[in-house]
Amino acid sequence: MTFFSAVDVITTKRDNGALSDNAITWMLDAYLRGDVAEEQMSALLMAIFFNGLSEHELNTWTDRMIESGERLDLGGLSRPTVDKHSTGGVGDKISLILAPLVAACGAAVPQLSGRGLGHTGGTLDKLESIPGWRAVLSNDEIRAQLDSVGAVICAAGQGLAPVDRRLYALRDVTATVASVPLISSSIMSKKIAEGTRALVLDVKVGRGAFIKSLDEARELATTMVRLGSAHGVATTAQLTSMNAPLGRTVGNALEVSESVDVLQGRGPSDVRELTLALARIMVELVAIDVDPETKLDDGSGFEVYQRMIRAQGGDPDATLPVAACRDEVVSAEDGIVQSIDALVVGVAAWRLGAGRARKEDPVSAAAGVVCLVREGEAISKGQPMFELHADDETHLQQGRDAIANAVALGERSVNAEALLLERITN
Amino acid sequence: MTFFSAVDVITTKRDNGALSDNAITWMLDAYLRGDVAEEQMSALLMAIFFNGLSEHELNTWTDRMIESGERLDLGGLSRPTVDKHSTGGVGDKISLILAPLVAACGAAVPQLSGRGLGHTGGTLDKLESIPGWRAVLSNDEIRAQLDSVGAVICAAGQGLAPVDRRLYALRDVTATVASVPLISSSIMSKKIAEGTRALVLDVKVGRGAFIKSLDEARELATTMVRLGSAHGVATTAQLTSMNAPLGRTVGNALEVSESVDVLQGRGPSDVRELTLALARIMVELVAIDVDPETKLDDGSGFEVYQRMIRAQGGDPDATLPVAACRDEVVSAEDGIVQSIDALVVGVAAWRLGAGRARKEDPVSAAAGVVCLVREGEAISKGQPMFELHADDETHLQQGRDAIANAVALGERSVNAEALLLERITN
Repeated sequence: MTFFSAVDVITTKRDNGALSDNAITWMLDAYLRGDVAEEQMSALLMAIFFNGLSEHELNTWTDRMIESGERLDLGGLSRPTVDKHSTGGVGDKISLILAPLVAACGAAVPQLSGRGLGHTGGTLDKLESIPGWRAVLSNDEIRAQLDSVGAVICAAGQGLAPVDRRLYALRDVTATVASVPLISSSIMSKKIAEGTRALVLDVKVGRGAFIKSLDEARELATTMVRLGSAHGVATTAQLTSMNAPLGRTVGNALEVSESVDVLQGRGPSDVRELTLALARIMVELVAIDVDPETKLDDGSGFEVYQRMIRAQGGDPDATLPVAACRDEVVSAEDGIVQSIDALVVGVAAWRLGAGRARKEDPVSAAAGVVCLVREGEAISKGQPMFELHADDETHLQQGRDAIANAVALGERSVNAEALLLERITN
Repeated sequence: MTFFSAVDVITTKRDNGALSDNAITWMLDAYLRGDVAEEQMSALLMAIFFNGLSEHELNTWTDRMIESGERLDLGGLSRPTVDKHSTGGVGDKISLILAPLVAACGAAVPQLSGRGLGHTGGTLDKLESIPGWRAVLSNDEIRAQLDSVGAVICAAGQGLAPVDRRLYALRDVTATVASVPLISSSIMSKKIAEGTRALVLDVKVGRGAFIKSLDEARELATTMVRLGSAHGVATTAQLTSMNAPLGRTVGNALEVSESVDVLQGRGPSDVRELTLALARIMVELVAIDVDPETKLDDGSGFEVYQRMIRAQGGDPDATLPVAACRDEVVSAEDGIVQSIDALVVGVAAWRLGAGRARKEDPVSAAAGVVCLVREGEAISKGQPMFELHADDETHLQQGRDAIANAVALGERSVNAEALLLERITN
């Protein structure tokens, strides 16, 4: 191994030069070993924020993140593997429905997930509202469940791309999160290490997403699709709108209930639409000739869901936690709902107790928001717009304060916004 | 005091926004307290590298660096104070001659200096080759010596702009040294805190300087002149060429000897020319109507030099350390000296033992290089070009290896390059 100086590596990127494969490998390895200090890595991350990484540099950077840890071996399963990743939205419970549904079509879905932070909820937090359900599985348990049930939603092991955990924590405190190559390598290193052969990316754009513009979403999606393909993972990105919350519910147990509704053929149409769109991409990526809608309508998706929950110790028939304190937010006037701000609703659910500010904070299973109105709907003064759920009065009041300006009323009639935007393939 | 988040401050600068006075003050104070981590400050420094600081931001930033420590009170002296700062070159012994000379004209010169690092020597290192001379003085001793002798060259106290020491160490390992606002605030915070009322800046440009182009030198000089003026220090910058070494000697005791030569009316013409040019600016800045050349020629500059050395425990008549090992480097062919590379000669002196790689390394008093030829001179094969001085054979060999390509020979006649380039005033 050639020896590099951290200052030389930082200087090269700072001056918009190309980092050699050896320089990238040395820098990440030396950082993990402790030979490159946090302040040196943060200077490099900021230089990358400004000058980016070329496609070749990004591939090498991502390789090295993957090689920093273990890779799950999902070869030899009886089904082809395909996974989904969402960049995070408000009311985004799609994974809970999608994983069993795509498994019902014949694929294996290794959905290794994280927890929520800030105004976006985490899939694991949602499922943990089911009594008995456990998020942590061994690698052997993951393989066995993928073979028998076809779907696993569990915590991503600490062994996958461990340098990402340190880089993410560093980026979080140094204002270097919002960088396309750094986001892409963080997401894709874990998905590639997870061992899936195909991947659909739900790249969310809008008020409730961290990406606000279509251009940014396109750039991020294109970068991740290329990165996946370069590592042998067939990857497609679907850009989707995240201006209003997805579905009617935002909160952990509330979203589990709504997911079950959709799996049983009921539930909000936007959740059903997005789930089916992503499911169709996933089966196509692994060349399974089944229309997921048939598996939703015949109840087999729900059946896999129940088996998936049971396989991880959960009781799918158990009563979910119910909030001790509830309140309705009513409209102060007549009007047509022009918009519902997903960010405001997401922050309100967080304040009600459903989310966390720091990763070590606990979350409430029962807390959250139920949206009682939809965009384009004509409502009257005094009509309930939101139902707030919390474990205590303090949180309930925080939720009331936070949700105040979520709905914009007007006189204009409003057409429902398209949910599915663009699709980006390699 | 308002509370800020470090991430917000970094984000603002990263996105090229303006940092408020409160944000800058909070950030630097919190960094000193330990509430802002090294990795956060390094991310901010890299963002400043890319997006700069406005004149207002830079004034506030510099203010806060000054306020982080003590200010020397040089009010009430019997003479007006005026200092010089050089951005660092090879063979730059000007301070040793200039401080006593300007004192001989009637000013007080509080030359608070640092040590050398890399290929540029430090004024304190040079004076420490004089037996008995001590660099560390108390504030009271500085004031007393300024009043009695008129010139002090001593170590800048740890109490002046202490945040600069931490920022400098951080910049050194994070490739954020080469930033005009960061260089300017580092230099000027210490000079302003030192209490001088006027200042001349010798901004060196060329092969042997850290600034390679005239444009960069202009930008740095203009920024520092404005910063000085904004803080009540009458400041003028003189841009000077640093392509070839200044004078004939590079090394600690060797440069002291050469300085004494100049103070006695001998010595190389370039050293004399630059010293007089800077001295004239200094006396003009404090409105003293004396031509420094008269004080050089009548020996009063030398007299003040001797008093200055004695006042700090040194014996100006003592024999200086002499190198145990010497060698000559001869020319391999006939030709006209086209150029002498100051960087190469500086590195050779460093390798011979005159400089240090890390700030805790010792330096040799006797080691160094004597240049025996000048640019434009016609020389013959076998003619000595350099005399190398070292304490042992190992260092001598390192110096031989390093100096190999210092001289470019050719057939073209060469005119001496102008030493004084531009002058920048407010």
